[in-house]
Amino acid sequence: MDKSVFDKQMDFLLEVDKVKEIYRQTYISDVSRFENDAEHSWHSCVMAVVLSGYFPDADLLKTLKMMLFHDIVEIYAGDTYCYDVEGNKDKEKREKESAEKIYGLLPEGQKKEFMDIWMEFENGDSPEAKFCRILDRVQPTMLNKASGFASWKEHGIKKEQVLERNRTTFEGPEEIKTYMENIIENAVENGFLK
Amino acid sequence: MDKSVFDKQMDFLLEVDKVKEIYRQTYISDVSRFENDAEHSWHSCVMAVVLSGYFPDADLLKTLKMMLFHDIVEIYAGDTYCYDVEGNKDKEKREKESAEKIYGLLPEGQKKEFMDIWMEFENGDSPEAKFCRILDRVQPTMLNKASGFASWKEHGIKKEQVLERNRTTFEGPEEIKTYMENIIENAVENGFLK
Repeated sequence: MDKSVFDKQMDFLLEVDKVKEIYRQTYISDVSRFENDAEHSWHSCVMAVVLSGYFPDADLLKTLKMMLFHDIVEIYAGDTYCYDVEGNKDKEKREKESAEKIYGLLPEGQKKEFMDIWMEFENGDSPEAKFCRILDRVQPTMLNKASGFASWKEHGIKKEQVLERNRTTFEGPEEIKTYMENIIENAVENGFLK
Repeated sequence: MDKSVFDKQMDFLLEVDKVKEIYRQTYISDVSRFENDAEHSWHSCVMAVVLSGYFPDADLLKTLKMMLFHDIVEIYAGDTYCYDVEGNKDKEKREKESAEKIYGLLPEGQKKEFMDIWMEFENGDSPEAKFCRILDRVQPTMLNKASGFASWKEHGIKKEQVLERNRTTFEGPEEIKTYMENIIENAVENGFLK
């Protein structure tokens, strides 16, 4: 017998629990340990709600759906550090396969809805995707500063890499642009960014 | 000089990072460790999006705002296990003081908006508050089952306590009522719930 719609939904909801064990390269603010994808997604969603006034073109509900789900493909594909050149080569392929697998647990209509939102995030063109991609960079940068730039130091990251990674961010609202520029300058001045 | 609106918002956004260190009595599904409040909030929000069709009276955006923020008062008040009689005596007072402190970091308008939403959640009367309170019980119950009822076993919880705690849940959608009843019966039959 086919599973009911509700049972499929609950299977998906239990499976996504695994995202809590996908650790990133960012430390939480007290530097006691790395942050995981579930925490990062939660924090970015809180950020979206608080900063939504700076992004009047983005629909907040759609932004939150995008932000909540944007990293669950990492359950099977793993987290790829944004400055890992080798790992980023096949990232797209790995994540696409992973998306089919994780969203495939859901009933057909929801599978399509969430796959579409995820692909919109990956494409980065819509107002919501731009908002999410900025949050996806500002949230770890805020924590990186709070933790004394531990992550940039450990990986020997260069200023040019951070600027390249944040190109979209600098096209965003003035307040966020200034906030990010100040952090980067501060890191360079103090020798935490090469 | 007074802080700018943006600086107040960023102060709040960094302070809420501490919610990642507030651990609950629920294990994540692989039973390797307890879940924290940020993960619980993220997971409950994902659940809200996936199960929103069963709650047609609740506005999903408001539900998500409520769910994202519902536990940040625990940053200063700590997590009070739902079956801890002693700890629950002064829970309301502790959490009210904590709410003033954490939401007080925000600009006035947002402080009021989020305090109001949190109090609406605490009162439990609106469609969104009912939806959130059901998720707040279903999410840990799902994990508790996945972890072999570790939390109920360790605390020697009785069936009557779970039924009492889930009174609102049983007034919710039929699918969720049946799901929860099955879990509770299963736990009783296997001796994990007294």
